[in-house]
Amino acid sequence: MIRHSVIFTLKSSVDAAGVKAFFEAAHKLAAIPGVQHFESLKQVSKKNGYGFGLSMEFADEALYEQYNNHPLHVQFIQDHWLPAVAEFMEIDYLPYEQ
Amino acid sequence: MIRHSVIFTLKSSVDAAGVKAFFEAAHKLAAIPGVQHFESLKQVSKKNGYGFGLSMEFADEALYEQYNNHPLHVQFIQDHWLPAVAEFMEIDYLPYEQ
Repeated sequence: MIRHSVIFTLKSSVDAAGVKAFFEAAHKLAAIPGVQHFESLKQVSKKNGYGFGLSMEFADEALYEQYNNHPLHVQFIQDHWLPAVAEFMEIDYLPYEQ
Repeated sequence: MIRHSVIFTLKSSVDAAGVKAFFEAAHKLAAIPGVQHFESLKQVSKKNGYGFGLSMEFADEALYEQYNNHPLHVQFIQDHWLPAVAEFMEIDYLPYEQ
């Protein structure tokens, strides 16, 4: 299992309707083959400056790679991510095994 | 649901046996009342500098607060976290609801 996530802030120019539209667009990524446990998240810790998150899981690296190159993902980046996101950090987790 | 997580790096002085001991100690946090879905994680994205993660969920804010103040948590911070961790960021997620 690979859990791919991204923690981010949206530009101050993105109003409440823009946030809603962004997450509606993001949710379509859940339909890409291999995407499991897709989650739209609000970041609430005051110990970092990010406001939102997206998280999903893949069974293996090949499905993750396929998602990255999928036209729906590429289009989302172009049409929604780049125009709206101010700052972000990608986090990819594997289970820690002793 | 609140998902509390922390992404971190360990000090370069922490060797392989030290990493193992750290995660063994961390896993005892799973026994604190209210902790659900406790996960020990390895961070593998090359797009950030962190190496590990811990993640857990609480049903509500009161249980999260109770965990924070629990003697086992306080002792873990003192005996294992502070001596071993070099850098970290706390992330707390709620489900994003339109």
